[in-house]
Amino acid sequence: MEPGETVTGTGPEPVLGVAPGQVYGVGVGPGDPDLMTVRAHRLISGAEVIAYPVLETAESFARSVAGAVIPPSAREIPIRIPMTIEREPAQAAYDHGSRCIAAELDDGRDVVVLCEGDPFFFGSFMYLFSRLSSRYRVEVVPGVSSLTACAAVLGSPLAARDEVLTIVPGTLPDAELGRRIDGNEAVAIIKVGRHLPRIRSVLDRLGLTDSAGYVERATLPSQRIMPLRDAPAAAPYFSMILINRTRDPWL
Amino acid sequence: MEPGETVTGTGPEPVLGVAPGQVYGVGVGPGDPDLMTVRAHRLISGAEVIAYPVLETAESFARSVAGAVIPPSAREIPIRIPMTIEREPAQAAYDHGSRCIAAELDDGRDVVVLCEGDPFFFGSFMYLFSRLSSRYRVEVVPGVSSLTACAAVLGSPLAARDEVLTIVPGTLPDAELGRRIDGNEAVAIIKVGRHLPRIRSVLDRLGLTDSAGYVERATLPSQRIMPLRDAPAAAPYFSMILINRTRDPWL
Repeated sequence: MEPGETVTGTGPEPVLGVAPGQVYGVGVGPGDPDLMTVRAHRLISGAEVIAYPVLETAESFARSVAGAVIPPSAREIPIRIPMTIEREPAQAAYDHGSRCIAAELDDGRDVVVLCEGDPFFFGSFMYLFSRLSSRYRVEVVPGVSSLTACAAVLGSPLAARDEVLTIVPGTLPDAELGRRIDGNEAVAIIKVGRHLPRIRSVLDRLGLTDSAGYVERATLPSQRIMPLRDAPAAAPYFSMILINRTRDPWL
Repeated sequence: MEPGETVTGTGPEPVLGVAPGQVYGVGVGPGDPDLMTVRAHRLISGAEVIAYPVLETAESFARSVAGAVIPPSAREIPIRIPMTIEREPAQAAYDHGSRCIAAELDDGRDVVVLCEGDPFFFGSFMYLFSRLSSRYRVEVVPGVSSLTACAAVLGSPLAARDEVLTIVPGTLPDAELGRRIDGNEAVAIIKVGRHLPRIRSVLDRLGLTDSAGYVERATLPSQRIMPLRDAPAAAPYFSMILINRTRDPWL
């Protein structure tokens, strides 16, 4: 071991004389590659190893955003996440992914993990962070979140002055969803997707439908923007509802 | 007038034959210039005219973030905001600023407005947007908000899965502050500044001090991070408190 070299934790035995690599959890922003940060652009274009989550049946959204910047020589680690609401299979996938990443780190290579939007805003990066950050250096590079991207394309400020902004996952059960929205001046409902009809019923009951804007795939060429009352019955995974009761910008 | 040219609204008479310029409201991110987006970098480095808010007694924070990218040839429009809690002087400053911007637009020049963090996340850009967007084309370019930047440097996810995330301005009166924080699993308190001692008392009463992290000037060289219980008595304007009751990452 060289002076100044440190080995912590209980990971696989590092190669002697090689300082372990570092993890970069990099937010790639909401979809438009130009909304990557300068730092994300630099880290990705110089990466030796790149990891990203992939839902079983689809291509990786984070990888598609960064695709043009990834060097052809980079080794790629796709982390395949099974489509199930059970926790265990997904946990096993993150266990496996973090072992693959750790093997690269132990050989002295840095690993750039691509994250949709921002790594710590409802992102899956936290599952890798919790598995790796006690043993390796992890830098989180924040990105533009879908939250502010949706407000930008809607042309509607999220919140201002003394307003409280509440961010509610649309996956909550109806009663809880209503309780967490009711009485709040500015609300963003994320993870809309297949829950849209249910969410609309809740907002109808609260009298909020006409103060709500709907955005699909913000900042992508396929982006769609409309008042919630005109929204389609079926929403894609990347969709959001924004409500501000003190303004009616969508009317 | 040329075919295809449109003049709308009631602004100053445009120069004949000149298509009006466009406004870009550009988020410059939380402080580290590398956290500007690629698009922000490109728009600022190619700008003919740049506008930004300046608090009376300080330099412009947004300008300091973008400073190295601003071309020396760019014309600059500082919008001087008086330091007062009265609304009228600030309104007058935004009236004046938007008239200066409109004069450039009418001459056919685009104007890049620099915004701290993200333009529509509790930003002052909305005051220019409301004055200009009915008469001119305005594109809002989202940026990395201080919210996700603070979570990144704290090494602590803001929220995940079905958690509700509540963003509360620390400027609210004590009782209201307590009511909007109490019972919520994940809370970010923004606009802390001189309200820190008051906010700490409220969090003490709610038993939340030990679940709270404190960040000053996230992503700047002068950044400071600590558990809230160790925070100084006086906080700068750019400070934030993050609370997640389901995790205790700062202990």
